[in-house]
Amino acid sequence: MADPGHPVKCSPVMVDGVALNGPTVNILDSEDFLQQSMAIILEDAVKKATDVKEKVCEWRPPEELKELLDLELRDEGESESQILQRCRDAIRYSVKTTHPRFFNQLFAGLEPYSLVASCIVEALKPSAYTYEVGPVFTLVEDAVLRKMMELVGWEEGGDGIFNAGGSMSNMYAVNLARYHHCPDIKQLGLSAAPRLVLFTSQECHYSISKAAAFLGIGTKNVYKVPSDESGKMIPSALEELIKKAKSEGAVPFMVNATAGTTVLGAFDPLEEIADICGEHNLWLHVDACWGGAALISKKHKHLLKGIHRANSVAWNPHKMMMACLQCSAFLVRDKTGLLQRCYSASASYLFQQDKFYDISFDTGDKSIQCGRKPDAFKFWLLWKAVGARQLEQRVDRALAMARYLADEIKKREGFRLLMEVAPVIKERMMKVGSMMVGYQPHSDRANFFRMIVISPQAGKADMDFVLDEIHNLGKDL
Amino acid sequence: MADPGHPVKCSPVMVDGVALNGPTVNILDSEDFLQQSMAIILEDAVKKATDVKEKVCEWRPPEELKELLDLELRDEGESESQILQRCRDAIRYSVKTTHPRFFNQLFAGLEPYSLVASCIVEALKPSAYTYEVGPVFTLVEDAVLRKMMELVGWEEGGDGIFNAGGSMSNMYAVNLARYHHCPDIKQLGLSAAPRLVLFTSQECHYSISKAAAFLGIGTKNVYKVPSDESGKMIPSALEELIKKAKSEGAVPFMVNATAGTTVLGAFDPLEEIADICGEHNLWLHVDACWGGAALISKKHKHLLKGIHRANSVAWNPHKMMMACLQCSAFLVRDKTGLLQRCYSASASYLFQQDKFYDISFDTGDKSIQCGRKPDAFKFWLLWKAVGARQLEQRVDRALAMARYLADEIKKREGFRLLMEVAPVIKERMMKVGSMMVGYQPHSDRANFFRMIVISPQAGKADMDFVLDEIHNLGKDL
Repeated sequence: MADPGHPVKCSPVMVDGVALNGPTVNILDSEDFLQQSMAIILEDAVKKATDVKEKVCEWRPPEELKELLDLELRDEGESESQILQRCRDAIRYSVKTTHPRFFNQLFAGLEPYSLVASCIVEALKPSAYTYEVGPVFTLVEDAVLRKMMELVGWEEGGDGIFNAGGSMSNMYAVNLARYHHCPDIKQLGLSAAPRLVLFTSQECHYSISKAAAFLGIGTKNVYKVPSDESGKMIPSALEELIKKAKSEGAVPFMVNATAGTTVLGAFDPLEEIADICGEHNLWLHVDACWGGAALISKKHKHLLKGIHRANSVAWNPHKMMMACLQCSAFLVRDKTGLLQRCYSASASYLFQQDKFYDISFDTGDKSIQCGRKPDAFKFWLLWKAVGARQLEQRVDRALAMARYLADEIKKREGFRLLMEVAPVIKERMMKVGSMMVGYQPHSDRANFFRMIVISPQAGKADMDFVLDEIHNLGKDL
Repeated sequence: MADPGHPVKCSPVMVDGVALNGPTVNILDSEDFLQQSMAIILEDAVKKATDVKEKVCEWRPPEELKELLDLELRDEGESESQILQRCRDAIRYSVKTTHPRFFNQLFAGLEPYSLVASCIVEALKPSAYTYEVGPVFTLVEDAVLRKMMELVGWEEGGDGIFNAGGSMSNMYAVNLARYHHCPDIKQLGLSAAPRLVLFTSQECHYSISKAAAFLGIGTKNVYKVPSDESGKMIPSALEELIKKAKSEGAVPFMVNATAGTTVLGAFDPLEEIADICGEHNLWLHVDACWGGAALISKKHKHLLKGIHRANSVAWNPHKMMMACLQCSAFLVRDKTGLLQRCYSASASYLFQQDKFYDISFDTGDKSIQCGRKPDAFKFWLLWKAVGARQLEQRVDRALAMARYLADEIKKREGFRLLMEVAPVIKERMMKVGSMMVGYQPHSDRANFFRMIVISPQAGKADMDFVLDEIHNLGKDL
């Protein structure tokens, strides 16, 4: 390349009163700032955040925190030292979801390899829609999808796409099932269509209802199948509901089964549900966002027995597999291009057909997004670093830890009684900042604490701590 | 906190054959790796990537790149030095979208402040759905939305949500307009509804059609309004189409106007469109994903005159405002809670009503996602650092640069003839790696190059380079 670089010292070229010479932001001028801020991130947002001796959160009520953060966006900029302080403050008052005692969400813990992958993505600013703009990342996505499909048991592969979270994956599934049932709806819409209905358990994630609302199906056309005491869908009840819907003149088109429900962690019986879907010719989607991780464990994969019979699967490696947020895959068994036919809009400015390379690597026309982050890379680099065996051991350990905790709870008096006082204990734990555990009601039961024990930063001592701390925080109640 | 930390030296506590003592991942063990990988990111993915003397891309065809990357995911992990090499390779073979001569997409350039914000978010792993889990980030989102609404001209505020890209924002808009038109559709679906139709220009982004397909409206019910030679919607043609739709028995419910079209950068005449929407009682959405940035410029904001009359606006700060990917806002003028009513599913495990703080700060029930990244922070920190005045100067400079380039093209012979040979020149520029410019056809015109000139790393010399390079790459054709 013969170009001498940016000649910044020549006389200004003015257009519309603006000087056009040279760059206005030179990264070399920011090198010190970048070094210093990366050091703060490593110290405060990584090391301190995961240190068990530090607080999980430094609670401030909204109005007070607003003042502390000085949120206003002004005409003039601030100095680099002020910005560094803002970084420290943002980290300080944020919840440390990577702390060993954060059990509040279905994600937790920090994988340094995945974090590095995330930061590479942030710096490179790629979009995964075409091979041209994301050569590394489109190939990585393809490789990760193949591996995940192998674990699902689709030996001949399939199709899929990473997207912005499990709720989105479930929406992809509902729309794809509808398209499979009646491709004309893509063009014609639902106004002339019969009343389409889908089935899911009463324990399913709320995104199924959101999908029905968003996609024009209607939340009333989501038929909720009763679950048993442990939270699993009752197959005979599904069968009955399908018959009932048909007798009403509705048209069933899909069943959503959940592998790892949000509140109880239950696994719907996939084999029996797949049998019913086969009989009634219904699309079977498995929401394995949470429980999919068990597929990597020889000991626990039986929980998802029959998942290979699903037409589509949602699985979030950002949950139990520890990929950084977000990393969420939608997998499809079809290999005839159904996903692309369903989602394509063939934008001619992006997906030109006269490109000089094999355009089957352009994935963007399978997506409802246009720009799309290459989230698969966060899982790929992590997997490369630790290998499948260690991922398996971690899943086994998380399930063993859950068993330990359940056994310990049974030994401790008073823990059942705690259910009614969960909101008070929650408030106290947030203000102390010692740990974070989520609570929720469940059918006719009162609020209870739900423990998520997947963090590789957590161990037995943390389980014991949780029980002691709940006892301490609530002993006067 | 009285806890002594993780006692890792006691005898192993075994459950199901798994030792539960201590953490399995200790960040302190990874400190060296993190330091080294951050140094690689700064050197290769930041400094080298933005260096005009380096290549924009190091082109490899898919099959060759697959081999180079060794994509397979194996049972055993790799050493840290191998992983560091994988990081270097991923960066090396990725396209440098932050390079001064990347003009291929509606994003480009790198803002160090926004990059730092991104890395903070990646390390902290927050989700923006509740104040409890994202105290800093929910407040920041609120502040940024307010500021953006102020620029739109909604003096009394409104509502909004950051989400996973402009296509998603447009989908939010179509669904919200439909809900506003007929709230019952959320529950009942469209099967009993009349044929709803929406209007947009033939130059609009393809996400409007994708939205119609996804939401069950049907792509045929998107009526494409003719545009004039410069790419602007013709208001009289809109009026005619609305009347035609009504005469067919269809029910118009919204108009999408585009402020900054994808291929030509045209701004639809918002005042006239707003008049028509008022007359026919239609929801007006403005897709200002690309052109919204002009709102910050006193010189150019006239391009969006009338935007304050819109019911909703999509605006991506990750485009001309230089926030890191993705940073995309959906803004709503309504202040009665329409957004929340439309999108809520009231998941009791996440949005408990008995929380100990003001739950109006929990934003998750306005979203179609569950977990949601706090993208507003990337714009907030950038704005804090540079201030509105500098953001304004950058927008002014980008538009001046576009004018300079247009003038230069007029002076150069042979440039109109280039249109037919764009794919060949594109292939050559990718293989040389000297720059990246996208090409596309437009109505009955052949392929042409579309220049995006927003990067703060680019200047006049780069504009001249582009013209010389296109000339050089194509002179034998």
